[in-house]
Amino acid sequence: MSIRERLSGNEAVATAMKQINPDVVAAFPITPSTEIPQYFSTFVSNGLVDTEFVAVESEHSAMTACIGAEAAGARAMTATSANGLSLMWEMIYIASSLRLPIVMSLVNRAVSGPLNIHNDHSDAMGVRDAGWIMLFSENNQEAYDNMVMAHRIAENKDVLLPLMVCQDGFITSHSIENIELIEDDKVKEFVGQYKPEHYLLNKKEPIAVGPLDLQAYLFEHKFQQAEAMRNAKKVIAEVSADFEKLTGRKYSFFEEYKLDDAETAIVCMNSTAGTAKAVVDELRAKGEKVGLLKIRMFRPFPSEEIAKALSHLKAVAVLDKSDSLNGAGGALFEDVASAMYVSGNNVPMASYVYGIGGRDTKTDDIEGVYNDLAEIAKAGKVENPYRYFGLRG
Amino acid sequence: MSIRERLSGNEAVATAMKQINPDVVAAFPITPSTEIPQYFSTFVSNGLVDTEFVAVESEHSAMTACIGAEAAGARAMTATSANGLSLMWEMIYIASSLRLPIVMSLVNRAVSGPLNIHNDHSDAMGVRDAGWIMLFSENNQEAYDNMVMAHRIAENKDVLLPLMVCQDGFITSHSIENIELIEDDKVKEFVGQYKPEHYLLNKKEPIAVGPLDLQAYLFEHKFQQAEAMRNAKKVIAEVSADFEKLTGRKYSFFEEYKLDDAETAIVCMNSTAGTAKAVVDELRAKGEKVGLLKIRMFRPFPSEEIAKALSHLKAVAVLDKSDSLNGAGGALFEDVASAMYVSGNNVPMASYVYGIGGRDTKTDDIEGVYNDLAEIAKAGKVENPYRYFGLRG
Amino acid sequence: MSIRERLSGNEAVATAMKQINPDVVAAFPITPSTEIPQYFSTFVSNGLVDTEFVAVESEHSAMTACIGAEAAGARAMTATSANGLSLMWEMIYIASSLRLPIVMSLVNRAVSGPLNIHNDHSDAMGVRDAGWIMLFSENNQEAYDNMVMAHRIAENKDVLLPLMVCQDGFITSHSIENIELIEDDKVKEFVGQYKPEHYLLNKKEPIAVGPLDLQAYLFEHKFQQAEAMRNAKKVIAEVSADFEKLTGRKYSFFEEYKLDDAETAIVCMNSTAGTAKAVVDELRAKGEKVGLLKIRMFRPFPSEEIAKALSHLKAVAVLDKSDSLNGAGGALFEDVASAMYVSGNNVPMASYVYGIGGRDTKTDDIEGVYNDLAEIAKAGKVENPYRYFGLRG
Amino acid sequence: MSIRERLSGNEAVATAMKQINPDVVAAFPITPSTEIPQYFSTFVSNGLVDTEFVAVESEHSAMTACIGAEAAGARAMTATSANGLSLMWEMIYIASSLRLPIVMSLVNRAVSGPLNIHNDHSDAMGVRDAGWIMLFSENNQEAYDNMVMAHRIAENKDVLLPLMVCQDGFITSHSIENIELIEDDKVKEFVGQYKPEHYLLNKKEPIAVGPLDLQAYLFEHKFQQAEAMRNAKKVIAEVSADFEKLTGRKYSFFEEYKLDDAETAIVCMNSTAGTAKAVVDELRAKGEKVGLLKIRMFRPFPSEEIAKALSHLKAVAVLDKSDSLNGAGGALFEDVASAMYVSGNNVPMASYVYGIGGRDTKTDDIEGVYNDLAEIAKAGKVENPYRYFGLRG
Repeated sequence: MSIRERLSGNEAVATAMKQINPDVVAAFPITPSTEIPQYFSTFVSNGLVDTEFVAVESEHSAMTACIGAEAAGARAMTATSANGLSLMWEMIYIASSLRLPIVMSLVNRAVSGPLNIHNDHSDAMGVRDAGWIMLFSENNQEAYDNMVMAHRIAENKDVLLPLMVCQDGFITSHSIENIELIEDDKVKEFVGQYKPEHYLLNKKEPIAVGPLDLQAYLFEHKFQQAEAMRNAKKVIAEVSADFEKLTGRKYSFFEEYKLDDAETAIVCMNSTAGTAKAVVDELRAKGEKVGLLKIRMFRPFPSEEIAKALSHLKAVAVLDKSDSLNGAGGALFEDVASAMYVSGNNVPMASYVYGIGGRDTKTDDIEGVYNDLAEIAKAGKVENPYRYFGLRG
Repeated sequence: MSIRERLSGNEAVATAMKQINPDVVAAFPITPSTEIPQYFSTFVSNGLVDTEFVAVESEHSAMTACIGAEAAGARAMTATSANGLSLMWEMIYIASSLRLPIVMSLVNRAVSGPLNIHNDHSDAMGVRDAGWIMLFSENNQEAYDNMVMAHRIAENKDVLLPLMVCQDGFITSHSIENIELIEDDKVKEFVGQYKPEHYLLNKKEPIAVGPLDLQAYLFEHKFQQAEAMRNAKKVIAEVSADFEKLTGRKYSFFEEYKLDDAETAIVCMNSTAGTAKAVVDELRAKGEKVGLLKIRMFRPFPSEEIAKALSHLKAVAVLDKSDSLNGAGGALFEDVASAMYVSGNNVPMASYVYGIGGRDTKTDDIEGVYNDLAEIAKAGKVENPYRYFGLRG
Repeated sequence: MSIRERLSGNEAVATAMKQINPDVVAAFPITPSTEIPQYFSTFVSNGLVDTEFVAVESEHSAMTACIGAEAAGARAMTATSANGLSLMWEMIYIASSLRLPIVMSLVNRAVSGPLNIHNDHSDAMGVRDAGWIMLFSENNQEAYDNMVMAHRIAENKDVLLPLMVCQDGFITSHSIENIELIEDDKVKEFVGQYKPEHYLLNKKEPIAVGPLDLQAYLFEHKFQQAEAMRNAKKVIAEVSADFEKLTGRKYSFFEEYKLDDAETAIVCMNSTAGTAKAVVDELRAKGEKVGLLKIRMFRPFPSEEIAKALSHLKAVAVLDKSDSLNGAGGALFEDVASAMYVSGNNVPMASYVYGIGGRDTKTDDIEGVYNDLAEIAKAGKVENPYRYFGLRG
Repeated sequence: MSIRERLSGNEAVATAMKQINPDVVAAFPITPSTEIPQYFSTFVSNGLVDTEFVAVESEHSAMTACIGAEAAGARAMTATSANGLSLMWEMIYIASSLRLPIVMSLVNRAVSGPLNIHNDHSDAMGVRDAGWIMLFSENNQEAYDNMVMAHRIAENKDVLLPLMVCQDGFITSHSIENIELIEDDKVKEFVGQYKPEHYLLNKKEPIAVGPLDLQAYLFEHKFQQAEAMRNAKKVIAEVSADFEKLTGRKYSFFEEYKLDDAETAIVCMNSTAGTAKAVVDELRAKGEKVGLLKIRMFRPFPSEEIAKALSHLKAVAVLDKSDSLNGAGGALFEDVASAMYVSGNNVPMASYVYGIGGRDTKTDDIEGVYNDLAEIAKAGKVENPYRYFGLRG
């Protein structure tokens, strides 16, 4: 029997971490993820977990400590946001290339500057090539569930990659919502014990970690890393299936909301999907055939599957909560457009940048996008594919 | 009359910096760009420039010092590579969002880990959304020329964005080649004086730089930043045209090498283009209609222009010297594929990841890609669009 | 019943710390004290103590963490040596002026440069004005015993000053000797619980710690600090008396070894006293009236008591294992000479600097000093009062 | 012909530095010495000196940069105060033990905590054993003159030790007084060129600086350092004699003010001497035989000379603007008492701690001390030798 609770997104993540009881947590506080290490260090102090909490002196050190811990053979976790992630950037790449299945809670916030503490996805988008598995979460329940699944995915022998679970800063991290928690023992059993194959503290197999890797082999090692990312798809599917058995909650690479018979659809991530679903319901009530594709698994990117799921539509809008500043559409838009191109589709598609720096995303805004899509579908083409919504007039 | 010299790529950049004589250079040494601050600090010591050289204690500080200098009203430059860029990552975003036209020489090298000091483009690709203008350079001449054009572009009132000039570590940074230098006084005249509109040391207009920018306006400021990036296209075209008048050397957003009548083509950046041109010539000699599109202006990305230039082809290969590790093709491939999709093209196209960590790129490898393209053109479709070349068997 | 063991000096200190079970230990490893945090962190890992072990990123942070912990209301300990102490120097003064009874194990080692990891007292001498109580230890037993007494002294309401227990690096820190340990429960009872009067985590009394303290009151606060140091004498005497009741081991401000009827004597600290005692015994066997005064309580300095204890002698040698580099005798010599002057004595007295950077101190060397003293006693005056022994010829 | 000016103490020091035109200045700003690097960096910017100004990121780095510069063969200077000195503490010892004649302006300020930015001598007293030559300055003229003499002393082949010139923060550093400056060319000639014998940039003699120096030789190297400190006395005398020839201004190890025929005297340093002289004049006018001994050369400490100069008195007060917190008198008091003891004197002597944290020192206070001395002289002994003045009642 699951446990009904009312928790904020940060509380949900901290609760998952408590149930997982990792060997090491190393973190440095930064808004809006501060509560996570704060709650967790309280769990440590109160003996609810037997984790080694490393109170590091910067985010660069937080990731470094996680790397050291994982290399040693321990299960390590951290949490951060925005410029915390920026400061650990050097180590983010090292974590993944050393194939260390660290799990991070990234509470998305606008990367400075100028200084802004509110939500957008610029932090996550900045590390989308870093070799981390990235799962996005619409609400506290999904953040919790992704967290519970994280180690099983990351630590799988065919994967061995770090993984971050994203959720929207303040919007879900600080909002209290109903949640169904899994019992402690079931989480423990589901997550299982970490049994690294190679690790520094294994006396029987002395190894070096992170030595010089010049022209002779780095390419092959990066290829293995890319293979691991490809393998992650299968593993994520399997773990999600197991999770469904345990909880009844089904997680795919993405969620298709009334997409089957839709003529137009929005593609988005995290909390915006909740707003969009409300709009879809409303428009459906008016007889409009609109749908939604909410991406959960952003890395690896399920190109083929997404292209297939969108192929029957007459118009698609991809929503990016971050501007790539490249003069050519948001990062998610490019991923989807590229996937569509490779699959030979030619559904008219527009890029929408929105919600930067905590700008509210309202149902009216989303409805406006569906209206745009209706026009695009009618015209059979997109005049100006790179758009914004929510900007002051 | 230009000056004929024989210089390495690093020497070429340092020479350009000497001729530009910026107000401030702040840099921390890292292979393979170390020589640039080394040469430059010698120029300072010998009185050849009157630049303030700030010997910072980390790359994070290097970019911070450049930001401070530019905010104060000075023209600031730096140089770095790979993990130097990683450590300054937090400040990279701040530089662009504060709209400070800092100019950086990025000598491309594989970002760790594991530790590798050789060339690939993983460092540049990691900042492709950071709001910096990014110019790539096939050889020392282009690195020099881009550097001479840099400030005119970055400091333009319609742009005001930082700019980085990329070249391949060791491959061009350390290879001595012939080069045509512009006379000092002509460079001085071409680059002109920096006349910032708003700056901290202007006593007549006290301003604050980088304060809190919450939900009310950050989106609008990011939009202005995106607009500036879009404006950069026009400005880059204008400055390049002026440069052609001065030197006779023509620079467009990209170079089309025997592309007009080609049936298949490779898209790539930096030194690989040199190798590819040799292969194109060779294959052309055999009667094969192959061409090349070498991207110079990577940010802003000339989507429309590239899509148009590739639209007549029967098959295209996009070469990425970095793996996006997303299970869905390299970063440049996605940019091109997305551009093609938006433009309504459907030329068969394949992503090739190659040359990681300094792996040699040989004419045989490039010829292999053209052979693949011939097959794809014949088949009219791509079976496996995500490919590698140069990997050990 | 005490427990007979064989432990090194570092093990003895770590054992005392285990029995004390402080709230917080924050330390950064440095030879030769590295073993102390190493042993202690193992105790933490194995659950033998419930201390919060803070794995800081420098010695500056180690002392800062101890300051924060004590200010919060916790009992905090650390250990360091030589340049570790140097790097925490800024915080050393802050610890004492904030009246925080932190306890440190200082394993004495030569302060760089050039780099030397061996024993002398230059580290301790460098902080002799810093407002810390300083207890010196001849051997592992004394290091252990001083550690057990430390908190009772430091935390006394009339004292509230940090305290460091010194012992000689390698000479005693790494030598295994017999030791009598006190039972865990008796140590626990002896040390007692820490009950701070004012502390940050006391919700009932919100306070600020370490604010600006300008001309109006700093002098008064320093006076209180000086008073506390003077009060420490009485408290050290009381705690030592209690300790004697518990263990039978008597500790005074200094140990007088065959001093009563001596005509000449050596004054020294730490392990050299052991060597000197052997020489005293040997010379006494030959009928020479020699004695020894071994200082245990170096800060506060028992001027009056020492002056009295030396007043009957015909010649005194004060041994400094560190050179004050002032052209005027070692630090301990000055303390003793000043005390003698104030007390109106005029016993001929010589300063000997010896044992710098781990130079061995042999019985021959000590015998040589007693021979010198015999000559001085005979002459009734000192020709050259500033001397060295153990220097290469 | 000298130049009459009106300058603050900081301006005087900065002016001396400008005239000296050292190769390198590395400094980090801290009150009240901030103005010195500020003025100096302006001189650099304006081309008045050709010094390399290193804008370091902490005081630890400031001293490290000076060490690097001097080791390389350059003349290096810095300035700091209080906690700036504390943070460079580790490097302070390394500078002297590597025998690098760095010159520092120390503008004395109370070392934290709690935080106080005003004058006392706790910063200087904390490094009195560090192997630096220490010259104290009553006013801006002396600070300037000591600075002009500094390199000649420090760089002398028989010395080769770093040297700091002290003056009282705010009291003299920020007070504008008349000053006689020496003409630029005469300063240049007086200071001379720095011609190091061994240095890293000497291609003809490759050397290592600061390597491991274990038990075999560190003692001998420290002995050489102590010898160098002893040699400094002679050199300081010679340089001061030369300086007198140049300027007519006479500097000895200490200044005897109406001491010859005095019956009681005060010993003090820095600006308090100015106040004391006024009191001496006043009391002399009333027929009281009072005098003053103002110490200029604090390290090396002129023990013998001071003992001799005080030997005829009936009572002496030694004023310490810092409390040694050892329960046994101030640092200067101990130096003097020890010197007196060694010389066989027995003049009654009292230690006065005063002026801590910027507490004003008034003529009344000083007069009170002379009154005390009159009583002591009458009694022929000191009842309570460890005293304070200026404390709130």
